[in-house]
Amino acid sequence: MKLLRVGTAGAERPALLDRDGVLRDLSAIVPDIDGNLLSDAALLDRVRAAAGAGVLPALDAAGLRIGPPVARIGKVVCIGLNYHDHAAETGAATPAEPVVFLKAPDTVVGPDDTVLVPRGSVKTDWEVELAIVIGRTARYLESAEDALAHVAGYAVSHDVSEREFQIERGGTWDKGKNCETFNPLGPWLVTADEVPDPQGLDLRLWVNGELRQHGSTANQIFPVGEVIRYLSHFMTLYPGDVVNTGTPAGVAMGQPEPKPFLRSGDVVELEVDGLGRQRQQLKDA
Amino acid sequence: MKLLRVGTAGAERPALLDRDGVLRDLSAIVPDIDGNLLSDAALLDRVRAAAGAGVLPALDAAGLRIGPPVARIGKVVCIGLNYHDHAAETGAATPAEPVVFLKAPDTVVGPDDTVLVPRGSVKTDWEVELAIVIGRTARYLESAEDALAHVAGYAVSHDVSEREFQIERGGTWDKGKNCETFNPLGPWLVTADEVPDPQGLDLRLWVNGELRQHGSTANQIFPVGEVIRYLSHFMTLYPGDVVNTGTPAGVAMGQPEPKPFLRSGDVVELEVDGLGRQRQQLKDA
Repeated sequence: MKLLRVGTAGAERPALLDRDGVLRDLSAIVPDIDGNLLSDAALLDRVRAAAGAGVLPALDAAGLRIGPPVARIGKVVCIGLNYHDHAAETGAATPAEPVVFLKAPDTVVGPDDTVLVPRGSVKTDWEVELAIVIGRTARYLESAEDALAHVAGYAVSHDVSEREFQIERGGTWDKGKNCETFNPLGPWLVTADEVPDPQGLDLRLWVNGELRQHGSTANQIFPVGEVIRYLSHFMTLYPGDVVNTGTPAGVAMGQPEPKPFLRSGDVVELEVDGLGRQRQQLKDA
Repeated sequence: MKLLRVGTAGAERPALLDRDGVLRDLSAIVPDIDGNLLSDAALLDRVRAAAGAGVLPALDAAGLRIGPPVARIGKVVCIGLNYHDHAAETGAATPAEPVVFLKAPDTVVGPDDTVLVPRGSVKTDWEVELAIVIGRTARYLESAEDALAHVAGYAVSHDVSEREFQIERGGTWDKGKNCETFNPLGPWLVTADEVPDPQGLDLRLWVNGELRQHGSTANQIFPVGEVIRYLSHFMTLYPGDVVNTGTPAGVAMGQPEPKPFLRSGDVVELEVDGLGRQRQQLKDA
């Protein structure tokens, strides 16, 4: 299923995009798309049955804002330098184990919402990523295979990053990863049963129409199952938590000078195979 | 006012500790202690008036668990190396600007809850800290003085840290800061009007009865107002967010070998002047 949330920010309603591309209202069946739903197999089955029976009312998609596909996200865990080509372009060695940092859930916005260039920023950068949404509490998991059974689904994620804040201002990367609007997510959460191979997805990102990133999750250093298994030994992952699994090569930081960092007016579009497409316009904060 | 939340984990009720040390039930007046309450001056006034009028029902504190004093925390932002003596004991240079990292809100537990030593951990360490709780949305603030007006109150915070995970396993500090139960908070949120000088508070921490940390917020490199002003240029702080402002010297990592890292069975007690006292027993995860 493709689950999503539509409506004004903070007042989204749960919805489903059916196999014919028709937007269907889920609000009579579930209160929201969140960890409670994603961890409730019976309720998910009820949604699936209602979708199959064709009884869900259609919504007029025209002019309707799409919000982030998960409400009440507990935390956003991010994996850094998880593609060989991206590690190389940043000058970093291939990590021996996953590099982990956090984004606050309040950075998450809808897939087509405005992204704000922070005041004083001169190095706002893009990163297309495959996001994992957790469906079952993951704690000290033993195998990558078992870890995959804790995934509710996948989504497109834009891990917007301010490189000066991240790297040149002391401390950890978090300082350049948590600016307002820095994590567009969606449009949909595609349930894991419809993503049989999360390591076979192409990712693409364009800035002002120019293709800047084109990679494949086949080139992830630590694949999805291993990422979840690994993380579960350092923190507990809960239903509704999001994990951004890293970005392939092609970010602004990796380009020759003058590096094409984002500015107000720029348009970023990004997509992951089967998971939909985002489009953001940049504005000054 | 001293605001707190009492009851079993996940089902706490809002309460107040009055000037006579009597625990009073607030659940008839406010649904919970959270960002909604802390940003609502009129509702806080109503709580204050009810406390003054002596109309709040007393609660029997005997055997009652105390939870974290804030519900629905959006994010926990932490300042690293914010005391000269602690920076020195870790071998780090005094930072030129605040070092920032994040803990997930799901690490927050009550002040006397069990703290779990992660599986495989040999370097679990303690850190007594002054926590700030945000009361007004803070975004691009211009002065430290204005920033102080965005503080709802203060609390004792235990920034439990696993040093091997934090420092020796690649990536950012977050990997050693986000283990389950790693942020005891409370017992109370003391409203800012009752903490006239947040830079004049002593902090103390004992392990198995031995005093290990004894510092003063007078020795913070970046004081409370400056921390909030600074952070507001990198991220937006919302009501109910928590900021851990760093720890003074005396952590296990700073001791001679063999360093006394925490093990199952150890008891940690910590307090900050006027903000109450915590006591945790360590157990294996």
